[in-house]
Amino acid sequence: MSVALVGAGPGDPGLITVRGLELLRRCDVLVYDRLVAPELVAEAPPWARRIEREGLAQEEVNTLLVGHGRAGLAVVRLKGGDPYVFGRGGEEALALAEAGVPFEVVPGISSLAAVPAAVGIPLTHRGLASRATLVAAHDPAALDYEMLARLDGTIVLFMGLASLGAIVERLLEAGLGSTTPAAVISRGTWPDQEAVIGELAKIAELASGLPSPALVVIGEVVRLAEALTPRASRAYATVR
Amino acid sequence: MSVALVGAGPGDPGLITVRGLELLRRCDVLVYDRLVAPELVAEAPPWARRIEREGLAQEEVNTLLVGHGRAGLAVVRLKGGDPYVFGRGGEEALALAEAGVPFEVVPGISSLAAVPAAVGIPLTHRGLASRATLVAAHDPAALDYEMLARLDGTIVLFMGLASLGAIVERLLEAGLGSTTPAAVISRGTWPDQEAVIGELAKIAELASGLPSPALVVIGEVVRLAEALTPRASRAYATVR
Repeated sequence: MSVALVGAGPGDPGLITVRGLELLRRCDVLVYDRLVAPELVAEAPPWARRIEREGLAQEEVNTLLVGHGRAGLAVVRLKGGDPYVFGRGGEEALALAEAGVPFEVVPGISSLAAVPAAVGIPLTHRGLASRATLVAAHDPAALDYEMLARLDGTIVLFMGLASLGAIVERLLEAGLGSTTPAAVISRGTWPDQEAVIGELAKIAELASGLPSPALVVIGEVVRLAEALTPRASRAYATVR
Repeated sequence: MSVALVGAGPGDPGLITVRGLELLRRCDVLVYDRLVAPELVAEAPPWARRIEREGLAQEEVNTLLVGHGRAGLAVVRLKGGDPYVFGRGGEEALALAEAGVPFEVVPGISSLAAVPAAVGIPLTHRGLASRATLVAAHDPAALDYEMLARLDGTIVLFMGLASLGAIVERLLEAGLGSTTPAAVISRGTWPDQEAVIGELAKIAELASGLPSPALVVIGEVVRLAEALTPRASRAYATVR
């Protein structure tokens, strides 16, 4: 395989997969997201070319991957979370497929469950939630609030922090209970992780000022955080 | 931490996290699911006590974890997928918390995106799906078919293979289009992975005879498999 789309996980460098680290350690070219841990970028060989994705258009990233892949170099495209969960990995994979460049996708730990877990919230739990809905919330006008309000299960909003006030207002109007438990977790699994937990009606105010990226979790499972919050701050795993 | 609930990932042993493997390699007691790769079970130290979970009631598993954790042993509870995604990890964590035994949760790669990825299906994709709903489908009578049929996005059914015919029938009755693309992936990321892809109305027939566990994916993203299916059968990553 000449190009690998590798999920770096949510932040903590210890959450990359064994397979992902193996590919990273023998790449010639590394194209990495801004939100990837510096410890992982440092795992590429000293001679590897390192290219930060920040500031490049998606089209330019695709061109880079295709070009270096065609040249027969071992390319790792290291992406935050999982390449195929709100990661635009499909677009990069399509560009490679259309160009006839062989590629491999190595899944990563998505924020969707790992970030709630870091504050003691299981995504699903017997008797509380047997269903979870993941939503890209960068455009609050595009959300189906009626549907979301009727869901019986856990709701996870990606990229919802910036418009959280407006999103919550629409959810309440659509009939979601104002006392539904909610959490906002900022920079989950990083050493500077911060989280707030409260009733839906108050969560936007509680979360004001939290830095991005943040994940929003709504549903009964949030109640488990009281019992299951990790006692110490999470160990920042070392890559070996 | 004396007890770690560690996600082993979907099958391929290369998909465990670096942190999970680190804990596994220094545990005193390993309690593992039947569906965990033997290569991972072999990574525990030779002197570690190995206990298969199969055949034990959940209550017995909880008692084992609490007992060995209280004794100060380094216990790894190695679970398929992610402990907090349809994994009953919350129940084990609650038992430990109630007993006052310190524990750590190490996320794993859930099947939810890794298994579709193994056949070239991204969970989300710009223009096709900005939402995904994950459903535990072991009890088809408990599903809300009206809601599922109205969802606009990707639907992933866990444990839905056994009742797939009945589930599809109810989804069609509820108005989900009979030509909606669907896939069933059996033993995803394992060397004996098998998958079928087709229209929703025919998928249960196509999937008949596939072995468990299997994941069912419904939605427009399934169309991408034609372009993005890995060319070679997936590399079976080695643990190092």
